[in-house]
Amino acid sequence: MPLWKIHHPAGAYSDADKQEFAEAITGIYTQIPIPAFYVVTIFEEVDGNNIYVGGRSHERFVRIQVDQMARTLPGSVIREWWVHTLDEKIKPFVGDRGYDWEFTCSELPADLWSLQGIVPPPFSSMAEKRWVTENKALAYGQSEMLPASFVAAAENGEVLLAPGIRGG
Amino acid sequence: MPLWKIHHPAGAYSDADKQEFAEAITGIYTQIPIPAFYVVTIFEEVDGNNIYVGGRSHERFVRIQVDQMARTLPGSVIREWWVHTLDEKIKPFVGDRGYDWEFTCSELPADLWSLQGIVPPPFSSMAEKRWVTENKALAYGQSEMLPASFVAAAENGEVLLAPGIRGG
Amino acid sequence: MPLWKIHHPAGAYSDADKQEFAEAITGIYTQIPIPAFYVVTIFEEVDGNNIYVGGRSHERFVRIQVDQMARTLPGSVIREWWVHTLDEKIKPFVGDRGYDWEFTCSELPADLWSLQGIVPPPFSSMAEKRWVTENKALAYGQSEMLPASFVAAAENGEVLLAPGIRGG
Repeated sequence: MPLWKIHHPAGAYSDADKQEFAEAITGIYTQIPIPAFYVVTIFEEVDGNNIYVGGRSHERFVRIQVDQMARTLPGSVIREWWVHTLDEKIKPFVGDRGYDWEFTCSELPADLWSLQGIVPPPFSSMAEKRWVTENKALAYGQSEMLPASFVAAAENGEVLLAPGIRGG
Repeated sequence: MPLWKIHHPAGAYSDADKQEFAEAITGIYTQIPIPAFYVVTIFEEVDGNNIYVGGRSHERFVRIQVDQMARTLPGSVIREWWVHTLDEKIKPFVGDRGYDWEFTCSELPADLWSLQGIVPPPFSSMAEKRWVTENKALAYGQSEMLPASFVAAAENGEVLLAPGIRGG
Repeated sequence: MPLWKIHHPAGAYSDADKQEFAEAITGIYTQIPIPAFYVVTIFEEVDGNNIYVGGRSHERFVRIQVDQMARTLPGSVIREWWVHTLDEKIKPFVGDRGYDWEFTCSELPADLWSLQGIVPPPFSSMAEKRWVTENKALAYGQSEMLPASFVAAAENGEVLLAPGIRGG
């Protein structure tokens, strides 16, 4: 996760185009950063007799389904920015080439997700940071599930207080 | 959105059948009305060696996945009516032809959806009304995001009151 | 529902392997028990030019999407156990054969689901018990929507009390 499934007409993308498209999509996520290998792109060719828009066969339509994790896009400002960002990145591969396009995003539960038999660590945690660097699934312990920003603050001698927690 | 993905056995539907099936599905939505071009139908042929029901290959099974917008089916009465409506419309293409069938609907967030680079306007808004008539994605302003029923009432000189709003 | 969609490289599974894999998946659910025919497995071959992980073509990657019903996995303990159970069952078909793998589960609304034109009965109800035994969709009445455990207790002369309900 994320998983991008791209339904496209026959001949819309060469192998080089697909590579480039997949890289553009991956770049959206690695800049956050999240581990590059989280991003999976599947291209699925659908010919005009198998896709209908408004009940009519459409030979130049690209339909994208994106599966994302729930709770990573909190609030309407971030969500609008996200949709705009995706459109900016995919436009060269759809509208700019004369294709109509549509995308939707689902928000799947992050706790029912598994990679190589491991439930991925929390968003922005120490372990995820290591997964970004190593770009693969690695075993991790409970202490690595803490937010990287929390650990960094503690290492700087800053005391983070929360209700019910006493600083030392 | 909605997106209907129809997994079917080889030879289940001719091109004419697919056209008719896609039109039947589109009709469910245009009667609401929502814009016809919102409705996308994708047919995906799956041969018997690639689909299993209860662990057994099934050569006469149609499995439909429907992606819909969240919050457009409020309450159990409308939801039951909806499932019944879908079954009525698809029965001629499944049960009546001797196929077993199943469908599920997901409810995707409407704010993570984009058509031709535009986030579709709110359900039943003035802008959506224009999209229904023109049957394509068009730029719209904030005033067109108001519900069509609200604008109609205001034009009739009716004052709509809501908590915190004073009528003039 | 559940629906398992297994995207796999060409040649990863023989027909016999697919049969066995589908049976292993079905077994996860029938032990609960839920009706075997609820479990649908679809295999979808994706060649290396159509699947990218982290922006790079990946020829040995199995990506699984699972659609499940919402509210059948309450609480973090059961959810962790569930992910672990799925990984145990699928490992012989992925990691043990040298494939990388990932799965995600969606949680779809149970009330927007239909099988043979019938909305499946509530989880653990009398009707579901009958569907398990008969392994097919059957008409059922309101009284069969009661939990099997409730009916069993009542037949044993046990009185179940709930706030607002008086025992006789």
